[in-house]
Amino acid sequence: MNITVSGVGMTKFGELWDRSPRSLASEAVSEAIKDAGIRKNNIQALFVGNMLSGILGGQEHLGALYSDELGLFVPAMKVEGACASGGLAVHAAIQSLLAGTYDTVLVLGIEKMSDQKPELVARGLMGAGGSDEQLAGATFPGLYAILARSHMDTFGTTQKDLAAIAVKNHFHASLNPQAHYHAPITVDRVLKSACVADPLKLLDCSPISDGAAAVVLSRTHGQRSLPRRQAGKIKIIASQVATDTLSLSGRKDLTKFEATQKAAKKAYLEAGVGPGDLDLAELHDCFTIAELLAVEDIGLYKKGEAAHAISRGEGRLGSSKGCILNTSGGLKACGHPVGATGVKQIVELTRQLRGTCGARQVSGARIGLSQNVGGTGATCVVHILKREA
Amino acid sequence: MNITVSGVGMTKFGELWDRSPRSLASEAVSEAIKDAGIRKNNIQALFVGNMLSGILGGQEHLGALYSDELGLFVPAMKVEGACASGGLAVHAAIQSLLAGTYDTVLVLGIEKMSDQKPELVARGLMGAGGSDEQLAGATFPGLYAILARSHMDTFGTTQKDLAAIAVKNHFHASLNPQAHYHAPITVDRVLKSACVADPLKLLDCSPISDGAAAVVLSRTHGQRSLPRRQAGKIKIIASQVATDTLSLSGRKDLTKFEATQKAAKKAYLEAGVGPGDLDLAELHDCFTIAELLAVEDIGLYKKGEAAHAISRGEGRLGSSKGCILNTSGGLKACGHPVGATGVKQIVELTRQLRGTCGARQVSGARIGLSQNVGGTGATCVVHILKREA
Repeated sequence: MNITVSGVGMTKFGELWDRSPRSLASEAVSEAIKDAGIRKNNIQALFVGNMLSGILGGQEHLGALYSDELGLFVPAMKVEGACASGGLAVHAAIQSLLAGTYDTVLVLGIEKMSDQKPELVARGLMGAGGSDEQLAGATFPGLYAILARSHMDTFGTTQKDLAAIAVKNHFHASLNPQAHYHAPITVDRVLKSACVADPLKLLDCSPISDGAAAVVLSRTHGQRSLPRRQAGKIKIIASQVATDTLSLSGRKDLTKFEATQKAAKKAYLEAGVGPGDLDLAELHDCFTIAELLAVEDIGLYKKGEAAHAISRGEGRLGSSKGCILNTSGGLKACGHPVGATGVKQIVELTRQLRGTCGARQVSGARIGLSQNVGGTGATCVVHILKREA
Repeated sequence: MNITVSGVGMTKFGELWDRSPRSLASEAVSEAIKDAGIRKNNIQALFVGNMLSGILGGQEHLGALYSDELGLFVPAMKVEGACASGGLAVHAAIQSLLAGTYDTVLVLGIEKMSDQKPELVARGLMGAGGSDEQLAGATFPGLYAILARSHMDTFGTTQKDLAAIAVKNHFHASLNPQAHYHAPITVDRVLKSACVADPLKLLDCSPISDGAAAVVLSRTHGQRSLPRRQAGKIKIIASQVATDTLSLSGRKDLTKFEATQKAAKKAYLEAGVGPGDLDLAELHDCFTIAELLAVEDIGLYKKGEAAHAISRGEGRLGSSKGCILNTSGGLKACGHPVGATGVKQIVELTRQLRGTCGARQVSGARIGLSQNVGGTGATCVVHILKREA
């Protein structure tokens, strides 16, 4: 696959009370276009990743809306797959490049959530789940709590193990100026935080965030305009999607996401690499248990072995062993503006592979993977990125 | 472009009070898969076109939902672009085939609207419009009335001319068992129907409909399994998208949709045909004025000349001159389940090009065009289909 990430941009993630969706989009896109060293009129198509604009704001038609707002007036569409909307938008954009329809396209992931009443946001987010789950009054913390309990019962995973994931990701976020949270936390503080859905504590959960992220993707022959300061071209060498039952009630095994396993397997095959080749990964840690499932499902650890490894310090910046996990801070601490998340993962990987991440740089990073999940694993999108020499 | 429409299916359109979205999807998809002469497990990916499931039903994540409900468990995404969602889903599916990612994919367009309170539906549909239009309390009948008035003032188009379009499309629908309406109407009846938004009467407006439509698309080498009864392969020879300002307030000229003009121009170039080659067209006649704009914008008539031509009987089944317009009955009389419309257009063109449309068959039809619009022309998707010998 010959797709280059030519430019990336993103806003700070957080509770951005004074910002409109349009100003967020404009900031992320302007940075991405400038970073690509191109002009706005080089963009040939726009793919927008968003989940909640219809439910929360009554606004659909975001493809045309942002094409208009950004002054692009190019073919445009919104792509939606719950919290995997951003990753799916990247995947759809890549298809249009591989098809030869376009040479240079823009992907915008965006979500504005914090201005809405929390109960509306919670109900809106359940739009990602099965109707049986919605009718039962389930919420995503509750559903992920079931997954956490299942993992604990099967493998002896502890709340302390889960807390270690939150601690690691808050530490990484403390080094990321664009993250929602900057204060490091401790295992003790996670364990003492309010219980949201047993066994998940408040600090096991990702926040409600606002934010936008954008990437310019190109077919390789369009790369003459790459800014010189980039150490090497950043290529997307795999883009894969898989789905599973919408509702947890359809699953045989609650200690894994089969969609992640399938998408990762196909992505490794497409890229010609394996989990052992990964220098870093941006994983969909909407809850700490989700990162634990992810590292096992993408094959970095055997089932049941990741919890202790991360508790011992693996996956943390500075660890000499293995793949560094969620250098951005992840959804957990960088924040989770739903439609932006899958695009932000590509932004973070690109910056890491370029070597421009400063205090949170993974030294010599060459290959990275992103894993973006919709619902409780009903959709999974995996991308693999590589720095070319 | 080497894309084949291997199979098509659709439900009846109408107020389907006793049907769930899932049963509609299942019916349309089962027919399309059977028609393609393949099995469910030959489907490699699913693209869902839908606009209002989030706003009206609080349900998003329709890619995974229908992949699950239909027992496919394949890569899946929802594509949204207001009333052009179906056409955009077809376009996105085509990109994945041209990319070489998949060989055989399924597109499902679906909308369930009639169970909702009309004021909620009207507000939901305004999610396709600009925020200035929403804040001003505009509705789509009102916005299209502005377009109608502008066309009347500029070209002398009359309400009677517009009514002739409704009469033609209701006549076509009377020959289509799957149409929302089956009773032919007269110009007099249109003119005497209630005024919705001057100069548009009730019978100038498309209805609120439920329905689903599905197509199986393949790259050509996968066509060994085509059922023998098909006279020839039906190819999609162009798929183009264009956008314009979201709000009418941004337009310089209200007597045309520039997005339609741009998409059609690119589509003709891609297909190597011109408007004079079209045997039939499925046009986005959400209001009668929209069909009038469309026939001019796709180049069948010069600006200001279509109204009288259609009043004289052109575009009607049996007319010996020119291209037959909206044989399905169009949105106006076949119905307009928003996300299904763009997919239904492909279903109708395919059936016509196969010669299986019975009483409403366009004799010897070989080339057809579909035009699917989002909002007041902010998005336009054009496809051109051709029967191969």
